[in-house]
Amino acid sequence: MKGRTFIITGPSGVGKGTIIQELFARQPKLYFSVSATTRGPRPGEENGVHYHFISREQFEQWIQEDAFLEHAEYVGNCYGTPKKYVDEAMDRGEDVILDIEVQGAEQVYRKRPDAVRIFIAPPSWEELEHRLTGRGTESADKVRSRLARAKEEFHFAADYDYIVINNTVEEAVEEIRAIIRAEHCRPAQRLPLLNAAL
Amino acid sequence: MKGRTFIITGPSGVGKGTIIQELFARQPKLYFSVSATTRGPRPGEENGVHYHFISREQFEQWIQEDAFLEHAEYVGNCYGTPKKYVDEAMDRGEDVILDIEVQGAEQVYRKRPDAVRIFIAPPSWEELEHRLTGRGTESADKVRSRLARAKEEFHFAADYDYIVINNTVEEAVEEIRAIIRAEHCRPAQRLPLLNAAL
Repeated sequence: MKGRTFIITGPSGVGKGTIIQELFARQPKLYFSVSATTRGPRPGEENGVHYHFISREQFEQWIQEDAFLEHAEYVGNCYGTPKKYVDEAMDRGEDVILDIEVQGAEQVYRKRPDAVRIFIAPPSWEELEHRLTGRGTESADKVRSRLARAKEEFHFAADYDYIVINNTVEEAVEEIRAIIRAEHCRPAQRLPLLNAAL
Repeated sequence: MKGRTFIITGPSGVGKGTIIQELFARQPKLYFSVSATTRGPRPGEENGVHYHFISREQFEQWIQEDAFLEHAEYVGNCYGTPKKYVDEAMDRGEDVILDIEVQGAEQVYRKRPDAVRIFIAPPSWEELEHRLTGRGTESADKVRSRLARAKEEFHFAADYDYIVINNTVEEAVEEIRAIIRAEHCRPAQRLPLLNAAL
């Protein structure tokens, strides 16, 4: 059975990273999409594990070849999701998890309308502010600006297939696992199997 | 949080009854929709438990008042799903399970397009035939005609939200539970909650 693509997005600080890490610990046959980037590797970063490190020429060629599901430039470096690895994983029957920004998610969805979009929401703005402050790495200004951006991004949540509230990591992960299981029961997934058997 | 309505249908002999029974044993806050009928109670049948036993006048009045989600007549008796109990259960926050024929499911869906439709499919026609024969209550002719009808009804499966294959009762029940959980993560369910909190 072919795998499916799940786009997981949500505002900065919502706890997406922790949720995805725990999801991978519990759910078999998942593939985490590794981005391509033009920036150089930092100490400890491995090619193909943390990123696919490629040249700007290569990156631009991939754009020309429509080889990205989404791509963007941040502070002079390019980042993108290569189609190739996503498609190979789905063909192997693995479900693909794309950990992606709201803007990137929109790009992917235009190219892959059968991708399942999950928006991770905080239980409250107070809680999100608390988590952003708790990191201890951001100035009060930065926290305010991240919070304002989160509130803007939240307007997109209504267009998603599912909204998962990060009350607890446990609950959020189990909801995502239920969504993955349910999405494998869709007629488009099941009918090829059944038509072969029936 | 308001409950949702889940229409569970599938061909005769597919094991729907057993699946629903096991579902109720495992899943809290479910309401099983009890049909209304004009036929008299059989020994052991209780009003409001097995059926709502009502007069034909009452039944026809309810049709006039558009008080049914679906209704049909079989061998001189009328059967229908009253809206009232379904709506009351959803208002209490319970999910409603409608165990219903394919034709009835179509009627309900026209009135309640937000109902979730689950089609239970057999793993193979051989298995369905085996189960129908195994009941020991049906003639070979009856089994053949039920099987032919099952194959016709299967054409509707493509229009359902989900198809659950009854490989094992365990697996089928867990898939339905995943579907219920996933459907509670829909924006229409979650946004009222979030808009209150955010």
